[in-house]
Amino acid sequence: MLVLFTDYGWSDPYVGQMKAVLHTRAPGMPVVDLFHDVPDFNAHSGAQLLDALCPTFPEGAVFVCVVDPGVGSAREALVAEVDGHWFVGPDNGLLSIVAGRGRAARYWHIRWRPEGLSDTFHGRDLFAPVAARLATRESMDSWLETIPAPQVQFDLADLPRVLYIDHYGNAWTGIRGGLAGPEDYLEAAGQRLPWRRIFADAAKGEPFWHVNSNGLVEISANRGHAAGLLGLKVGDRVTLSGSPGSRSH
Amino acid sequence: MLVLFTDYGWSDPYVGQMKAVLHTRAPGMPVVDLFHDVPDFNAHSGAQLLDALCPTFPEGAVFVCVVDPGVGSAREALVAEVDGHWFVGPDNGLLSIVAGRGRAARYWHIRWRPEGLSDTFHGRDLFAPVAARLATRESMDSWLETIPAPQVQFDLADLPRVLYIDHYGNAWTGIRGGLAGPEDYLEAAGQRLPWRRIFADAAKGEPFWHVNSNGLVEISANRGHAAGLLGLKVGDRVTLSGSPGSRSH
Amino acid sequence: MLVLFTDYGWSDPYVGQMKAVLHTRAPGMPVVDLFHDVPDFNAHSGAQLLDALCPTFPEGAVFVCVVDPGVGSAREALVAEVDGHWFVGPDNGLLSIVAGRGRAARYWHIRWRPEGLSDTFHGRDLFAPVAARLATRESMDSWLETIPAPQVQFDLADLPRVLYIDHYGNAWTGIRGGLAGPEDYLEAAGQRLPWRRIFADAAKGEPFWHVNSNGLVEISANRGHAAGLLGLKVGDRVTLSGSPGSRSH
Repeated sequence: MLVLFTDYGWSDPYVGQMKAVLHTRAPGMPVVDLFHDVPDFNAHSGAQLLDALCPTFPEGAVFVCVVDPGVGSAREALVAEVDGHWFVGPDNGLLSIVAGRGRAARYWHIRWRPEGLSDTFHGRDLFAPVAARLATRESMDSWLETIPAPQVQFDLADLPRVLYIDHYGNAWTGIRGGLAGPEDYLEAAGQRLPWRRIFADAAKGEPFWHVNSNGLVEISANRGHAAGLLGLKVGDRVTLSGSPGSRSH
Repeated sequence: MLVLFTDYGWSDPYVGQMKAVLHTRAPGMPVVDLFHDVPDFNAHSGAQLLDALCPTFPEGAVFVCVVDPGVGSAREALVAEVDGHWFVGPDNGLLSIVAGRGRAARYWHIRWRPEGLSDTFHGRDLFAPVAARLATRESMDSWLETIPAPQVQFDLADLPRVLYIDHYGNAWTGIRGGLAGPEDYLEAAGQRLPWRRIFADAAKGEPFWHVNSNGLVEISANRGHAAGLLGLKVGDRVTLSGSPGSRSH
Repeated sequence: MLVLFTDYGWSDPYVGQMKAVLHTRAPGMPVVDLFHDVPDFNAHSGAQLLDALCPTFPEGAVFVCVVDPGVGSAREALVAEVDGHWFVGPDNGLLSIVAGRGRAARYWHIRWRPEGLSDTFHGRDLFAPVAARLATRESMDSWLETIPAPQVQFDLADLPRVLYIDHYGNAWTGIRGGLAGPEDYLEAAGQRLPWRRIFADAAKGEPFWHVNSNGLVEISANRGHAAGLLGLKVGDRVTLSGSPGSRSH
């Protein structure tokens, strides 16, 4: 399975052009659009989201990851294998959180460049062909150079900020749910929000926090747009607090 | 063929996560995104739209239908077979109109729950795996309990309201075209709109009604945004009238 | 490979309904969404974009092209074969630029009409079934009538206007890159923009022009939204100028 994770958006033709390469070079392989709306040019936010979204994908899945404001410059092109998942993308930190938090990771720089490589669309010209070769298990011995670690690595800690706001208005944070318990409060936008297990446990329109289906602390409201109600936006700081033995972030 | 009908939107990662499950569990089966923009949390509007959109799909198609504000609460999970199409989704009325208007329908509640079922994403964790099993014709005898009818059933009558506004500005109503004739007028937004067979039969910018390609009475304008011109929004009431023997709604 | 190029947008159910036809009639054939956001009803802009986007697709690809404000009227339905690519769509000029600029093109009108052809959705009812037959190499001798040229043909010259603005804010023009050199300036929105090879060569927020990955002159800004910064919109005129031997447009 090939999985796309980009900031290319849906409306532009870039995703379709990348898929044409994948279907041509890895015939019969399913291609799944996981996410095309990583906040533009924001590799850090993308790195946190990628780590949260991978676990439900099957072993052997190859993720083509492109959030690449430095495209065409000297940044390296990276392949990583992390706990049975494969990742292809720029060496700009985007793959560093999922790799750094994994149990076992291996890394390579891509030494191959195609004829006619464009200056601005390595997703189509470089990353997609390499991902197709990985997915079809073609040998890439002459293409890949083993390296000990990515050149750019982000801090592996949880990020106590709003990472993403979905179309319902749920605000995903970069705090992993394992660190939070039902007695904790989440402080956000000047309010102390209680925990609720599910939407139906909250009063209509009441904002609350819960651990979302991807394992992250999320701010929601029952039949309401939480981010709109609270005035939250991507990057806003949040704090988990208030219970005995609380962990501050 | 697996068909997705949800309110998950395109931009969030939910659709991609659901597809990863479908491709893994029903390898080689095509997965078609029919609709991801059912007005959020609006199972009634979704039920009317689902009924209008199904007929052009081939026999045996399995529809994964998720508009599920009660996710994680006590609502049941439903499978229905209606005139050769299969449907999986919450028992909250969403499947009740296509089933109730069908010639023959059978119903089951889903007794299986996966390990690690999330509280908020049954589309990925429950409905997608069940749909994959239906699509691959795996036995589900131990999973499904025959029931006489869904627990929640909506009124089967036509809905004389604006159901959906497409990106061109065409306003779909819940009135089926078989009830309307060329002599009828449609009253909407305080105006009496005439019938036109095709867009090119109307003057530029003139609003009119016609029976759309999914069999519903629709308000359009030739090279114009009808909903914008008339100030229409989802939920607005419309009335078919004006010809001898007219049927009021 | 089947490739979709339309103005149907992503949010409406039209694309999904068309894909159901393609998967049913051309089983196992990959279907790629290239572009669904051609400016509504704008076949001329669509024709320029289609020509720019085709070259990276493999030989034998069948493009289903629908920008069709005259649907249901007397306009003809066209098949074209251009340099190994196949195109199906309305004979309203949409296919005329890619065909007219090709090395070799052949044309047919479609004489087949399906039972139950809708008045407003020939993408699903007419063009998709024909494309599926082309893709599966079924005989269509009795369906297709050879014609010498399309009925509607647009000017084949470069279009010195903004053709499309992508979600990053890059403004594509209809000027092909082969006509422009690094010494040229692009005049747009009252400014003279210099050439830069890649985004990282420009100062942060500086607008510049370059030849984009589809071979068109494009206005961009490093980590900025060029169209927003300059107040550009689709249709705005641009001029390439300023170097010795400059070519005016």
